[in-house]
Amino acid sequence: MIASREIRITLPTWVGGFLSGWPEIFADDPTAMGLAVALARENVRQGGGPFGAVLLETASGRLAGVGINQVVASHCSLAHAELVAIGSAQQALGGYDLSQIVPGGGTLVSSAEPCAMCLGAIPWAGIGRLVCGARDQDARAAGFDEGDKPADWALAYARRGIAVTRDCLRAPAAAVLADYADSGGVIYGPRPG
Amino acid sequence: MIASREIRITLPTWVGGFLSGWPEIFADDPTAMGLAVALARENVRQGGGPFGAVLLETASGRLAGVGINQVVASHCSLAHAELVAIGSAQQALGGYDLSQIVPGGGTLVSSAEPCAMCLGAIPWAGIGRLVCGARDQDARAAGFDEGDKPADWALAYARRGIAVTRDCLRAPAAAVLADYADSGGVIYGPRPG
Repeated sequence: MIASREIRITLPTWVGGFLSGWPEIFADDPTAMGLAVALARENVRQGGGPFGAVLLETASGRLAGVGINQVVASHCSLAHAELVAIGSAQQALGGYDLSQIVPGGGTLVSSAEPCAMCLGAIPWAGIGRLVCGARDQDARAAGFDEGDKPADWALAYARRGIAVTRDCLRAPAAAVLADYADSGGVIYGPRPG
Repeated sequence: MIASREIRITLPTWVGGFLSGWPEIFADDPTAMGLAVALARENVRQGGGPFGAVLLETASGRLAGVGINQVVASHCSLAHAELVAIGSAQQALGGYDLSQIVPGGGTLVSSAEPCAMCLGAIPWAGIGRLVCGARDQDARAAGFDEGDKPADWALAYARRGIAVTRDCLRAPAAAVLADYADSGGVIYGPRPG
Protein backbone atom coordinates (compact mmCIF):
# COMPACT_ATOMS: atom_id res chain seq x y z
CA MET A 1 0.00 0.00 0.00
CA ILE A 2 2.76 2.37 1.01
CA ALA A 3 4.64 1.53 -2.18
CA SER A 4 2.23 3.42 -4.42
CA ARG A 5 2.08 6.52 -2.29
CA GLU A 6 2.84 10.02 -3.42
CA ILE A 7 2.69 13.68 -2.50
CA ARG A 8 0.41 15.63 -4.79
CA ILE A 9 -0.36 19.29 -4.26
CA THR A 10 -2.26 20.94 -7.11
CA LEU A 11 -2.95 24.66 -7.39
CA PRO A 12 -6.73 25.24 -7.24
CA THR A 13 -8.54 26.08 -10.46
CA TRP A 14 -9.39 29.64 -9.35
CA VAL A 15 -5.71 30.59 -9.58
CA GLY A 16 -5.82 30.55 -13.39
CA GLY A 17 -8.52 33.16 -13.70
CA PHE A 18 -6.96 35.19 -10.92
CA LEU A 19 -3.57 35.38 -12.63
CA SER A 20 -5.09 36.56 -15.91
CA GLY A 21 -5.44 40.00 -14.35
CA TRP A 22 -1.71 40.29 -13.66
CA PRO A 23 1.33 40.81 -15.90
CA GLU A 24 3.74 38.04 -16.86
CA ILE A 25 6.72 40.31 -16.24
CA PHE A 26 7.10 42.14 -12.94
CA ALA A 27 9.08 45.35 -13.12
CA ASP A 28 9.62 45.84 -9.40
CA ASP A 29 9.25 44.20 -5.98
CA PRO A 30 6.07 46.04 -4.89
CA THR A 31 4.19 44.87 -7.98
CA ALA A 32 5.18 41.27 -7.35
CA MET A 33 4.37 41.62 -3.67
CA GLY A 34 1.01 43.05 -4.67
CA LEU A 35 0.29 39.73 -6.37
CA ALA A 36 1.56 37.69 -3.41
CA VAL A 37 -0.67 39.63 -1.01
CA ALA A 38 -3.64 39.46 -3.39
CA LEU A 39 -3.18 35.67 -3.67
CA ALA A 40 -3.10 35.42 0.13
CA ARG A 41 -6.31 37.45 0.45
CA GLU A 42 -8.12 35.55 -2.30
CA ASN A 43 -6.99 32.23 -0.80
CA VAL A 44 -8.68 33.16 2.46
CA ARG A 45 -11.86 34.02 0.54
CA GLN A 46 -11.65 30.59 -1.09
CA GLY A 47 -11.27 28.87 2.29
CA GLY A 48 -7.46 28.57 2.49
CA GLY A 49 -4.75 30.06 4.67
CA PRO A 50 -3.62 33.72 4.59
CA PHE A 51 -0.29 33.30 2.83
CA GLY A 52 0.78 33.80 -0.79
CA ALA A 53 4.09 33.62 -2.65
CA VAL A 54 5.38 34.52 -6.10
CA LEU A 55 8.51 33.17 -7.77
CA LEU A 56 10.23 35.29 -10.42
CA GLU A 57 13.13 34.80 -12.78
CA THR A 58 15.51 37.33 -11.28
CA ALA A 59 17.04 38.64 -14.51
CA SER A 60 13.80 39.26 -16.39
CA GLY A 61 11.17 39.56 -13.66
CA ARG A 62 9.17 36.89 -15.49
CA LEU A 63 6.67 34.97 -13.39
CA ALA A 64 7.97 31.43 -12.83
CA GLY A 65 5.55 30.18 -10.18
CA VAL A 66 2.97 31.04 -7.55
CA GLY A 67 1.92 29.43 -4.29
CA ILE A 68 -0.78 29.71 -1.68
CA ASN A 69 -1.14 27.96 1.63
CA GLN A 70 -2.94 24.65 1.00
CA VAL A 71 -2.16 22.84 4.27
CA VAL A 72 -5.76 22.10 5.22
CA ALA A 73 -7.20 21.41 1.76
CA SER A 74 -4.33 19.19 0.62
CA HIS A 75 -4.00 17.31 3.93
CA CYS A 76 -0.31 18.16 3.93
CA SER A 77 1.67 20.26 6.40
CA LEU A 78 4.32 20.90 3.73
CA ALA A 79 1.91 22.92 1.56
CA HIS A 80 3.05 26.38 2.64
CA ALA A 81 2.82 29.07 -0.04
CA GLU A 82 6.59 29.28 -0.49
CA LEU A 83 7.07 25.53 -0.93
CA VAL A 84 4.14 25.28 -3.35
CA ALA A 85 5.66 28.05 -5.47
CA ILE A 86 9.13 26.49 -5.37
CA GLY A 87 8.19 22.87 -5.99
CA SER A 88 5.62 23.49 -8.71
CA ALA A 89 7.99 25.85 -10.56
CA GLN A 90 10.90 23.41 -10.34
CA GLN A 91 8.84 20.54 -11.69
CA ALA A 92 7.38 22.68 -14.48
CA LEU A 93 10.87 23.85 -15.44
CA GLY A 94 12.41 20.39 -15.03
CA GLY A 95 15.17 21.05 -12.52
CA TYR A 96 15.70 21.17 -8.74
CA ASP A 97 18.20 24.05 -8.75
CA LEU A 98 16.72 27.31 -10.01
CA SER A 99 20.16 28.95 -10.01
CA GLN A 100 21.10 26.60 -12.84
CA ILE A 101 17.95 26.74 -14.96
CA VAL A 102 16.54 30.26 -14.62
CA PRO A 103 18.29 33.40 -15.89
CA GLY A 104 19.82 35.12 -12.87
CA GLY A 105 18.35 32.49 -10.52
CA GLY A 106 15.06 32.81 -8.69
CA THR A 107 13.53 35.58 -6.58
CA LEU A 108 10.95 34.46 -4.03
CA VAL A 109 8.40 37.09 -3.00
CA SER A 110 6.43 35.99 0.07
CA SER A 111 3.51 37.77 1.72
CA ALA A 112 5.09 36.96 5.10
CA GLU A 113 8.55 36.14 6.44
CA PRO A 114 9.03 32.41 5.87
CA CYS A 115 8.67 29.97 8.77
CA ALA A 116 11.57 27.75 9.86
CA MET A 117 10.70 25.05 7.29
CA CYS A 118 10.49 27.45 4.37
CA LEU A 119 13.66 29.29 5.46
CA GLY A 120 15.46 25.95 5.37
CA ALA A 121 14.01 25.11 1.95
CA ILE A 122 14.92 28.33 0.13
CA PRO A 123 18.71 27.76 -0.10
CA TRP A 124 18.18 24.22 -1.51
CA ALA A 125 16.05 25.65 -4.32
CA GLY A 126 18.69 27.90 -5.85
CA ILE A 127 16.92 31.12 -4.88
CA GLY A 128 19.16 34.18 -4.78
CA ARG A 129 16.73 36.81 -3.50
CA LEU A 130 13.97 36.76 -0.88
CA VAL A 131 11.46 39.60 -0.57
CA CYS A 132 9.17 39.55 2.50
CA GLY A 133 5.94 41.44 3.24
CA ALA A 134 4.61 40.92 6.76
CA ARG A 135 7.12 40.43 9.57
CA ASP A 136 7.48 37.32 11.70
CA GLN A 137 5.79 39.17 14.56
CA ASP A 138 2.79 40.00 12.36
CA ALA A 139 2.27 36.26 11.73
CA ARG A 140 2.72 35.48 15.41
CA ALA A 141 0.30 38.25 16.38
CA ALA A 142 -2.28 36.49 14.22
CA GLY A 143 -1.62 33.26 16.12
CA PHE A 144 0.73 31.43 13.74
CA ASP A 145 3.79 29.58 14.99
CA GLU A 146 6.80 30.49 12.86
CA GLY A 147 9.03 27.77 14.27
CA ASP A 148 12.56 27.83 15.63
CA LYS A 149 14.69 29.86 13.24
CA PRO A 150 18.46 30.47 13.45
CA ALA A 151 19.18 33.53 15.58
CA ASP A 152 20.27 35.67 12.61
CA TRP A 153 18.97 33.89 9.55
CA ALA A 154 19.31 36.95 7.29
CA LEU A 155 23.05 37.05 8.04
CA ALA A 156 23.30 33.32 7.38
CA TYR A 157 21.53 33.92 4.06
CA ALA A 158 23.95 36.74 3.21
CA ARG A 159 26.84 34.33 3.76
CA ARG A 160 25.22 32.03 1.20
CA GLY A 161 24.77 34.86 -1.28
CA ILE A 162 21.00 35.16 -0.75
CA ALA A 163 19.84 38.78 -0.52
CA VAL A 164 16.89 39.62 1.76
CA THR A 165 14.50 42.57 1.41
CA ARG A 166 11.97 43.07 4.20
CA ASP A 167 8.89 45.19 4.76
CA CYS A 168 7.80 45.34 1.14
CA LEU A 169 4.10 46.29 1.41
CA ARG A 170 4.24 45.20 5.04
CA ALA A 171 1.02 46.97 6.07
CA PRO A 172 -1.33 45.37 3.51
CA ALA A 173 0.45 42.03 3.94
CA ALA A 174 0.00 42.15 7.72
CA ALA A 175 -3.62 43.22 7.28
CA VAL A 176 -4.43 39.92 5.53
CA LEU A 177 -3.13 38.05 8.59
CA ALA A 178 -4.95 40.28 11.08
CA ASP A 179 -8.23 40.07 9.14
CA TYR A 180 -7.90 36.29 9.01
CA ALA A 181 -7.40 36.07 12.77
CA ASP A 182 -10.26 38.52 13.43
CA SER A 183 -12.61 36.41 11.33
CA GLY A 184 -11.81 33.29 13.37
CA GLY A 185 -9.82 31.48 10.67
CA VAL A 186 -8.24 28.12 11.46
CA ILE A 187 -4.74 28.48 12.90
CA TYR A 188 -3.39 25.20 11.58
CA GLY A 189 -0.22 23.89 13.09
CA PRO A 190 0.90 21.32 15.59
CA ARG A 191 -1.17 20.87 18.71
CA PRO A 192 -3.11 24.15 18.35
CA GLY A 193 -3.55 25.68 21.80
CA MET B 1 0.04 27.83 -17.70
CA ILE B 2 1.01 28.35 -14.08
CA ALA B 3 -2.59 27.82 -13.04
CA SER B 4 -2.54 24.09 -13.70
CA ARG B 5 0.74 23.46 -11.95
CA GLU B 6 1.30 21.00 -9.16
CA ILE B 7 3.91 19.28 -7.04
CA ARG B 8 3.92 15.54 -7.56
CA ILE B 9 6.45 13.24 -5.91
CA THR B 10 5.71 9.53 -6.32
CA LEU B 11 7.61 6.75 -4.56
CA PRO B 12 9.40 4.62 -7.17
CA THR B 13 7.96 1.21 -7.98
CA TRP B 14 10.92 -0.70 -6.49
CA VAL B 15 9.86 0.42 -3.00
CA GLY B 16 6.88 -1.96 -3.01
CA GLY B 17 8.93 -5.09 -3.51
CA PHE B 18 11.55 -3.82 -1.11
CA LEU B 19 9.06 -3.30 1.73
CA SER B 20 7.64 -6.82 1.34
CA GLY B 21 10.70 -8.11 3.16
CA TRP B 22 10.03 -6.01 6.23
CA PRO B 23 7.41 -6.17 9.01
CA GLU B 24 4.39 -3.88 9.22
CA ILE B 25 4.91 -3.40 12.95
CA PHE B 26 8.29 -2.27 14.29
CA ALA B 27 9.02 -3.36 17.84
CA ASP B 28 11.99 -1.08 18.47
CA ASP B 29 14.00 1.83 17.08
CA PRO B 30 16.94 -0.19 15.69
CA THR B 31 14.62 -2.34 13.56
CA ALA B 32 12.95 0.74 12.11
CA MET B 33 16.33 2.40 11.59
CA GLY B 34 17.46 -0.76 9.85
CA LEU B 35 14.74 -0.15 7.28
CA ALA B 36 15.58 3.56 6.94
CA VAL B 37 19.25 2.74 6.33
CA ALA B 38 18.39 -0.11 3.95
CA LEU B 39 16.11 2.25 1.98
CA ALA B 40 18.95 4.79 1.79
CA ARG B 41 21.37 2.16 0.52
CA GLU B 42 18.94 0.72 -2.01
CA ASN B 43 18.03 4.23 -3.21
CA VAL B 44 21.70 4.83 -4.05
CA ARG B 45 21.78 1.54 -5.96
CA GLN B 46 18.71 2.73 -7.88
CA GLY B 47 20.37 6.04 -8.73
CA GLY B 48 18.97 8.25 -5.94
CA GLY B 49 20.43 10.04 -2.93
CA PRO B 50 21.79 8.31 0.21
CA PHE B 51 18.98 9.14 2.62
CA GLY B 52 15.98 7.14 3.87
CA ALA B 53 13.23 7.74 6.40
CA VAL B 54 10.49 5.73 8.04
CA LEU B 55 7.35 7.08 9.72
CA LEU B 56 5.70 4.99 12.45
CA GLU B 57 2.54 5.29 14.49
CA THR B 58 4.11 5.86 17.89
CA ALA B 59 1.66 3.84 19.97
CA SER B 60 1.69 0.68 17.86
CA GLY B 61 4.94 0.87 15.91
CA ARG B 62 2.90 0.37 12.75
CA LEU B 63 4.52 1.58 9.54
CA ALA B 64 2.72 4.73 8.35
CA GLY B 65 5.05 5.90 5.60
CA VAL B 66 8.49 5.74 4.05
CA GLY B 67 10.64 8.20 2.14
CA ILE B 68 13.81 8.29 0.13
CA ASN B 69 15.68 11.22 -1.32
CA GLN B 70 14.20 11.96 -4.77
CA VAL B 71 15.58 15.47 -5.35
CA VAL B 72 17.29 14.72 -8.66
CA ALA B 73 14.75 12.27 -10.12
CA SER B 74 11.69 14.35 -9.22
CA HIS B 75 13.22 17.71 -10.22
CA CYS B 76 12.30 19.03 -6.78
CA SER B 77 14.56 20.26 -3.99
CA LEU B 78 11.81 19.54 -1.45
CA ALA B 79 12.01 15.78 -2.04
CA HIS B 80 14.16 14.90 0.97
CA ALA B 81 13.47 11.49 2.51
CA GLU B 82 11.85 12.96 5.63
CA LEU B 83 9.46 15.21 3.69
CA VAL B 84 8.50 12.41 1.29
CA ALA B 85 7.65 10.16 4.26
CA ILE B 86 5.70 12.91 6.02
CA GLY B 87 3.74 14.26 3.06
CA SER B 88 2.86 10.91 1.50
CA ALA B 89 1.70 9.51 4.86
CA GLN B 90 -0.40 12.61 5.63
CA GLN B 91 -2.13 12.48 2.28
CA ALA B 92 -2.73 8.72 2.52
CA LEU B 93 -4.18 9.17 6.02
CA GLY B 94 -6.14 12.29 5.07
CA GLY B 95 -4.85 14.82 7.59
CA TYR B 96 -2.03 17.33 7.97
CA ASP B 97 -1.51 16.83 11.72
CA LEU B 98 -0.33 13.32 12.59
CA SER B 99 -0.78 14.05 16.31
CA GLN B 100 -4.52 14.20 15.67
CA ILE B 101 -4.96 11.25 13.34
CA VAL B 102 -2.43 8.61 14.40
CA PRO B 103 -2.51 6.77 17.77
CA GLY B 104 0.18 8.36 19.94
CA GLY B 105 1.24 10.68 17.12
CA GLY B 106 4.04 9.97 14.67
CA THR B 107 7.66 8.85 15.12
CA LEU B 108 10.05 9.80 12.34
CA VAL B 109 13.11 7.58 11.93
CA SER B 110 15.68 9.16 9.63
CA SER B 111 18.94 7.65 8.39
CA ALA B 112 20.62 11.01 9.06
CA GLU B 113 19.99 14.06 11.23
CA PRO B 114 17.50 16.22 9.32
CA CYS B 115 18.70 19.30 7.46
CA ALA B 116 17.39 22.77 8.33
CA MET B 117 14.35 22.39 6.04
CA CYS B 118 13.31 19.03 7.43
CA LEU B 119 13.94 20.17 11.03
CA GLY B 120 11.54 23.04 10.39
CA ALA B 121 8.96 20.72 8.82
CA ILE B 122 8.80 18.08 11.57
CA PRO B 123 6.95 20.18 14.19
CA TRP B 124 4.27 21.18 11.63
CA ALA B 125 3.55 17.52 10.91
CA GLY B 126 2.51 16.53 14.41
CA ILE B 127 5.51 14.29 14.98
CA GLY B 128 6.31 13.61 18.64
CA ARG B 129 9.51 11.59 18.32
CA LEU B 130 12.55 11.87 16.07
CA VAL B 131 15.14 9.08 15.83
CA CYS B 132 18.36 9.86 13.93
CA GLY B 133 21.07 7.56 12.54
CA ALA B 134 24.06 9.40 11.09
CA ARG B 135 25.11 12.68 12.67
CA ASP B 136 25.10 16.06 10.98
CA GLN B 137 28.90 15.86 10.72
CA ASP B 138 28.67 12.50 8.93
CA ALA B 139 26.51 14.11 6.24
CA ARG B 140 28.84 17.10 6.02
CA ALA B 141 31.87 14.81 5.81
CA ALA B 142 30.25 13.25 2.74
CA GLY B 143 29.88 16.72 1.19
CA PHE B 144 26.25 17.54 1.99
CA ASP B 145 25.18 20.96 3.21
CA GLU B 146 22.86 20.58 6.20
CA GLY B 147 21.79 24.23 6.23
CA ASP B 148 21.57 26.79 9.00
CA LYS B 149 19.95 25.15 12.00
CA PRO B 150 19.03 26.77 15.33
CA ALA B 151 21.97 26.58 17.73
CA ASP B 152 20.31 23.99 19.98
CA TRP B 153 17.50 22.53 17.95
CA ALA B 154 17.11 19.45 20.15
CA LEU B 155 16.40 21.72 23.13
CA ALA B 156 13.91 23.70 21.04
CA TYR B 157 12.25 20.40 20.10
CA ALA B 158 12.09 19.37 23.78
CA ARG B 159 10.27 22.62 24.54
CA ARG B 160 7.71 21.62 21.91
CA GLY B 161 7.33 18.14 23.36
CA ILE B 162 9.28 16.42 20.59
CA ALA B 163 11.70 13.78 21.91
CA VAL B 164 14.99 13.21 20.05
CA THR B 165 17.06 10.01 20.02
CA ARG B 166 20.44 10.16 18.26
CA ASP B 167 23.07 7.69 17.13
CA CYS B 168 20.69 4.81 16.46
CA LEU B 169 22.75 2.57 14.13
CA ARG B 170 25.00 5.54 13.48
CA ALA B 171 27.86 3.49 12.02
CA PRO B 172 25.91 1.71 9.24
CA ALA B 173 23.93 4.90 8.56
CA ALA B 174 27.12 6.94 8.20
CA ALA B 175 28.64 4.21 6.02
CA VAL B 176 25.91 4.74 3.39
CA LEU B 177 26.91 8.41 3.17
CA ALA B 178 30.64 7.68 3.06
CA ASP B 179 30.22 4.99 0.41
CA TYR B 180 28.11 7.37 -1.68
CA ALA B 181 30.77 10.07 -1.50
CA ASP B 182 33.56 7.57 -2.25
CA SER B 183 31.73 6.38 -5.35
CA GLY B 184 31.47 9.93 -6.70
CA GLY B 185 27.73 10.35 -6.19
CA VAL B 186 26.08 13.67 -7.04
CA ILE B 187 26.11 16.09 -4.11
CA TYR B 188 22.94 17.95 -5.03
CA GLY B 189 22.33 21.26 -3.40
CA PRO B 190 22.60 24.92 -4.19
CA ARG B 191 25.64 26.08 -6.11
CA PRO B 192 27.67 22.92 -5.52
CA GLY B 193 31.30 23.86 -4.88
